[in-house]
Amino acid sequence: MSKELKIILIGAGNVGFHLGKKLYEVGLEIEQVYSRKISKAKRLGKKIKCEAIQNLDQISTEADLYILAVPDSAIGKVAADLSKEIPNSKLVVHTSGATPSTVLKPYFKNYGIFYPLQTFSIGREVDFANIPICIDSNLKKHRTLLEKLGNRISQNVHQINDRERAILHVAAVFVNNFSNNLFTIGEKITSTENLPFDILKPLIKETVEKITHHSPSEMQTGPAKRRDQTTIELHLKYLENNFPEFIEVYQTMTRNINSKISKI
Amino acid sequence: MSKELKIILIGAGNVGFHLGKKLYEVGLEIEQVYSRKISKAKRLGKKIKCEAIQNLDQISTEADLYILAVPDSAIGKVAADLSKEIPNSKLVVHTSGATPSTVLKPYFKNYGIFYPLQTFSIGREVDFANIPICIDSNLKKHRTLLEKLGNRISQNVHQINDRERAILHVAAVFVNNFSNNLFTIGEKITSTENLPFDILKPLIKETVEKITHHSPSEMQTGPAKRRDQTTIELHLKYLENNFPEFIEVYQTMTRNINSKISKI
Repeated sequence: MSKELKIILIGAGNVGFHLGKKLYEVGLEIEQVYSRKISKAKRLGKKIKCEAIQNLDQISTEADLYILAVPDSAIGKVAADLSKEIPNSKLVVHTSGATPSTVLKPYFKNYGIFYPLQTFSIGREVDFANIPICIDSNLKKHRTLLEKLGNRISQNVHQINDRERAILHVAAVFVNNFSNNLFTIGEKITSTENLPFDILKPLIKETVEKITHHSPSEMQTGPAKRRDQTTIELHLKYLENNFPEFIEVYQTMTRNINSKISKI
Repeated sequence: MSKELKIILIGAGNVGFHLGKKLYEVGLEIEQVYSRKISKAKRLGKKIKCEAIQNLDQISTEADLYILAVPDSAIGKVAADLSKEIPNSKLVVHTSGATPSTVLKPYFKNYGIFYPLQTFSIGREVDFANIPICIDSNLKKHRTLLEKLGNRISQNVHQINDRERAILHVAAVFVNNFSNNLFTIGEKITSTENLPFDILKPLIKETVEKITHHSPSEMQTGPAKRRDQTTIELHLKYLENNFPEFIEVYQTMTRNINSKISKI
């Protein structure tokens, strides 16, 4: 970018917080950060030395790019409200995996996507360098602009359309949200039984390291894969007596592993 | 160990293969390796310079330790057969997470466990240094012996009794087998849709790195956690049309994440 972009960040939750921090760190100017909750806007504003606002009517009309990092369910409403405050020629993007870019179309002539495919939590630092940034826009020149912006914070920028992004988001829910829930179950079982959860961590690490170079479908092990009904029944018996709330997950996953095998 | 143990390895599958290799690498003497399938015994025997046998009547009675690394369902039968060939005073251990040590009790006076809590695949090298080795025996002196043996290959040796090991094994199935299956689903969705599975790998890595220092229960994100019904329904609609075989997993995991939240 020959001339530095002026950016306004709308939303200061998990994504907004980390994205704002990173854009600031690489030298980009965030003019304002908006949040319905002024405490959230201020928490980020302080870190990235920019004005924190909680009303959209305070928003500057001078920025080049408006990034909506708000919950999926709020994107339409915030876009509608924003369109009353800034010219409809402004470039507005959102950061969601699940919501199509076209949700912005009724309000802005120039719209797009800036979606970091990663899991963010406020209390946890992330290394942006390898995070895939999925960008898109209705105009080629804005795709180029967003690609350049992505390259400032990551070496892993992809142009991904609405349909593709929605698919990636579904897959991301399986590999991230659901596997994290399995780790939570592992933690719950061990901690309830006074066993250290740490004893499972090398196994969890290896589960992921394995698939760096191998297909996970080839790396499947365990009683479901071996169709080891005796062990499966021992496990179900244990869960029935101790953690009945996890039986459905156990059975569903076991069936799913088995069904894939029977097709091979 | 002042005097080197003479070990015989019974079983040359995923666990036997890697365990045998590692014991050999740290300088222990494996006298023989047995497998019902002689090709498997030979594959390992060649690597660790030991005799490969396929009949238990060829087994040496001179060893100090007999390690059964056979499928859970075969442990009892192999132990019974083995007891006809060697004195019942010999120390015999198995490597299973799910099977109690007492399955060996009818056949041997000295029995125990040498269970590496890890996922093994023949084609994938593993670093033993951090693998938890769970050991146990009916006699204190053999617990000490197995602990020393464990320390030769890992810095992470634990004395774990039958009940505790069975619990760890259930938890291991959740955190490893089932999460690997979720990665398989992610791969299946992306590859079918001509999207690169690699784009999900930074997310998978971060999912695991997060829990090195944080509790997974605090790191949960996503539509289920947010109770974002709109996104959940979009995802289910997509799965219905494209991957109906994954709907049950999606629904079960979503319900499980939600139910935990409602209890908080």
